[in-house]
Amino acid sequence: MAITLKEVAERAGVSRAAVSRSFTEGASVSAKTRAKVMQAAAELGYSPNMLARSLTTRRTQLVGLVSNNFRNPVFLEIFDRFTRALQDRGLRPLLVNLSDETDPNRSVRLLRQYSVDGVIVASSHLPDGFADAFRAAGIPVVHAFGRATATPTVDVVAIDNIAAGRMVAETLLARGYRRLGFLGGPQQASTTEDRLAGFTATAHAAGASVTTRFAGAYSFAAGRAAMQAPLPDPQPEAWFCADDVLSIGAMSAVHDAGLRIPEDVGLIGLNDMEMAGWANIALTTIHQPFEDIVTASVDLIADRFTHADRAPDLRLFPCHIVERATLRPLL
Amino acid sequence: MAITLKEVAERAGVSRAAVSRSFTEGASVSAKTRAKVMQAAAELGYSPNMLARSLTTRRTQLVGLVSNNFRNPVFLEIFDRFTRALQDRGLRPLLVNLSDETDPNRSVRLLRQYSVDGVIVASSHLPDGFADAFRAAGIPVVHAFGRATATPTVDVVAIDNIAAGRMVAETLLARGYRRLGFLGGPQQASTTEDRLAGFTATAHAAGASVTTRFAGAYSFAAGRAAMQAPLPDPQPEAWFCADDVLSIGAMSAVHDAGLRIPEDVGLIGLNDMEMAGWANIALTTIHQPFEDIVTASVDLIADRFTHADRAPDLRLFPCHIVERATLRPLL
Repeated sequence: MAITLKEVAERAGVSRAAVSRSFTEGASVSAKTRAKVMQAAAELGYSPNMLARSLTTRRTQLVGLVSNNFRNPVFLEIFDRFTRALQDRGLRPLLVNLSDETDPNRSVRLLRQYSVDGVIVASSHLPDGFADAFRAAGIPVVHAFGRATATPTVDVVAIDNIAAGRMVAETLLARGYRRLGFLGGPQQASTTEDRLAGFTATAHAAGASVTTRFAGAYSFAAGRAAMQAPLPDPQPEAWFCADDVLSIGAMSAVHDAGLRIPEDVGLIGLNDMEMAGWANIALTTIHQPFEDIVTASVDLIADRFTHADRAPDLRLFPCHIVERATLRPLL
Repeated sequence: MAITLKEVAERAGVSRAAVSRSFTEGASVSAKTRAKVMQAAAELGYSPNMLARSLTTRRTQLVGLVSNNFRNPVFLEIFDRFTRALQDRGLRPLLVNLSDETDPNRSVRLLRQYSVDGVIVASSHLPDGFADAFRAAGIPVVHAFGRATATPTVDVVAIDNIAAGRMVAETLLARGYRRLGFLGGPQQASTTEDRLAGFTATAHAAGASVTTRFAGAYSFAAGRAAMQAPLPDPQPEAWFCADDVLSIGAMSAVHDAGLRIPEDVGLIGLNDMEMAGWANIALTTIHQPFEDIVTASVDLIADRFTHADRAPDLRLFPCHIVERATLRPLL
């Protein structure tokens, strides 16, 4: 019953290799040949079976896209970018939601079952065990938003979160703020740890104080709740909220307390998600270069298909500040 | 080299069927047997290959999750629910981003290549041609957020958007609003058409006027821009924004114009996405029952695997109003 590649080649009057290339995204084939092949395929009702092909090629072109960030709106932008970047290379994202998952081995079993060519872990606060477990199972893995280290065990693409924390402290100090606050995400998240470390080191070196609060999750509700807890008197003059969605939760708590931003208290976030630029939010924040991070992650996973044994790579991209309306002006 | 199921069965001291069931989500097997199998599998380094298995079973347990809504934050909640619901049934979502796609045949080719067991189209404004093209290609398809019709050509799971429009008009009329506005999404989206039809019919029957505006997309920026265009004098007293993200864009434009909500102008949305409940948004809106829609969609696609030829089904779920802070009180 099934139509074969050979039949398509005969009907189109081209070689079998030309048919194969016509169905491979990015392969070299003339527009004219591809058009002939597509017409013949349509007439015959032919569709290549990637999965049968994978038993020979040992490539499924499936890439696991693993995340546990389904409460942070920035991840819709991130999924959008990853799905497009993978599709542009003829790769298909198998989306894995690890929101309630604590057992890395279960995830490894699952992705091995589908013979994924690789895995992109897109999370700043999935236990490191996950990325390492994929690697140990022989699955190429890239950890996007992972931790910068001189000796990565898997490919990591990220920003330097310690440097970002320093950049924020300098920004606040330059505006005359001296009593500083830090609102982090989950305390064990490497992003929260590193941003706090850089922030505190620079603040303390300048003689500024740092009050810390941690939200149980990178979500609006968690950020808001953390900022509703009693604060020292006098309160911090400005807060570094280590994620935009936490910043928006904090904003809401600050407004409820009858305080104005930035007149009574300053706020700065991190990510520069689309919503940060909405006119009724107008959050001053650190721009995280998502496009660079996604492109590099997809480049690295694709490179691993042909260079399985190369040493793990670390790619860090620089951040910059986007000034909007939540900090007072420079001194 | 590859470890076989038989070797795992021998090491675990169980039948081959027991090994197979242990690796099938939801299959009946005792916890004790599964534990023995998992230990033996771990010791041997065994992992079942779903794709090789699929050549025999003709089932890949892959489900295409197709959407083009990557600018509307509600879709992060929807993807979260769909990925969990599919995973709970042992199905895997292959995420397909059709944001820039206009050719349904390309999408069909792509999903046929991966021998997906079915496709869930999760979009309110993808051309109907997409769902029909999957069906024509013999791929089971469920259209979540599709259009209610007495003669569906594919399974449709949704709300009754005409009834939702009527409900909003009644809500506004009951609060004494008589000059009404409607801010829709893309004018050709069935959701926008149907919400407007129900809204206008009820408003006109009560002698109220309806001013219409259409945003080019379901996004904050499009909603804001549409509300910045010149308005008739006198302006509408209250707007039905046919989607929460449009409502938030409209809010921003209203505030920029120096007007207060709800004192000067009322707003009501539709969806009840998490953000609508954020304290600094507090949008009065129509709750769309996402949990019911996702559960029914996954039930229907799974049912199609065994009942490929049953007639297309239409499942509609009721909505209700969530009162927050953007309409004036009842008369």
